[in-house]
Amino acid sequence: MGLIVLGVGTVASAQTADTAADGVRAADAAWLKVYSAKDLNKSLAFFDDQGSMLSPNDPIATGKAAISKLIAGDFSFGDLTWQVDKAGVSKSGDLGYTSGRYKFSFKDPSGKPATDNGKYLTVWKKQTDGSWKVLFDMFNTDLPPS
Amino acid sequence: MGLIVLGVGTVASAQTADTAADGVRAADAAWLKVYSAKDLNKSLAFFDDQGSMLSPNDPIATGKAAISKLIAGDFSFGDLTWQVDKAGVSKSGDLGYTSGRYKFSFKDPSGKPATDNGKYLTVWKKQTDGSWKVLFDMFNTDLPPS
Repeated sequence: MGLIVLGVGTVASAQTADTAADGVRAADAAWLKVYSAKDLNKSLAFFDDQGSMLSPNDPIATGKAAISKLIAGDFSFGDLTWQVDKAGVSKSGDLGYTSGRYKFSFKDPSGKPATDNGKYLTVWKKQTDGSWKVLFDMFNTDLPPS
Repeated sequence: MGLIVLGVGTVASAQTADTAADGVRAADAAWLKVYSAKDLNKSLAFFDDQGSMLSPNDPIATGKAAISKLIAGDFSFGDLTWQVDKAGVSKSGDLGYTSGRYKFSFKDPSGKPATDNGKYLTVWKKQTDGSWKVLFDMFNTDLPPS
């Protein structure tokens, strides 16, 4: 019985650790769903009112009007998907992050299919209603300079 | 006396709000100091053991050996400086972020001075000894593709 109790304790501890980051993982997955469906309004709604998008080849975009232009540009240019690799939240549960890899499929100027592979880092802030919103979203390519 | 007490209370409240992010701002400034002095060991020491550098044109570098190569490459290629714009920490004081703009001065292939301007996002984790270490550091350029 001693060993069984120890085993249960270990599992419970591991579950607690997972649960802490479950909220931001779920938010990351829900965001991916509306982003890959190219739903601009729903994608934009994931940003905190003070949120910023830190996109390569553009200055920092803060606020929904500026971010909307960047996302609309992405949607028209190609198809994005991503996979979370790491996720974590503060002990107080009000600040978190997700990070992973993205794949962006588009057509090059000659019309041939092309792919950009890279990575991302998202900082999430829990809102007063309990939902997680994006405070910062940043990404860059793994590929060598063209 | 009532007004004086009110005044003191207001100042104390503003100081509390500032103080919450003071730790990560100070860590960001201390990191900038050793980075701009190109001190590789001290720059590397700012990373958490599980820390990652998310550098453009390279895969995710996790751990000090991989990060050391990236930083050494930066040091030999040019001079980096940055300025923090936003900083925040969780209520529990164990997770924080800094974000701002960087300037990287280097020589182009013909030997002419050139400058890259961009932005960065750093996620900080407080260690058991109370120091802040980098969990993720990411940056990308504001300039159009070359």
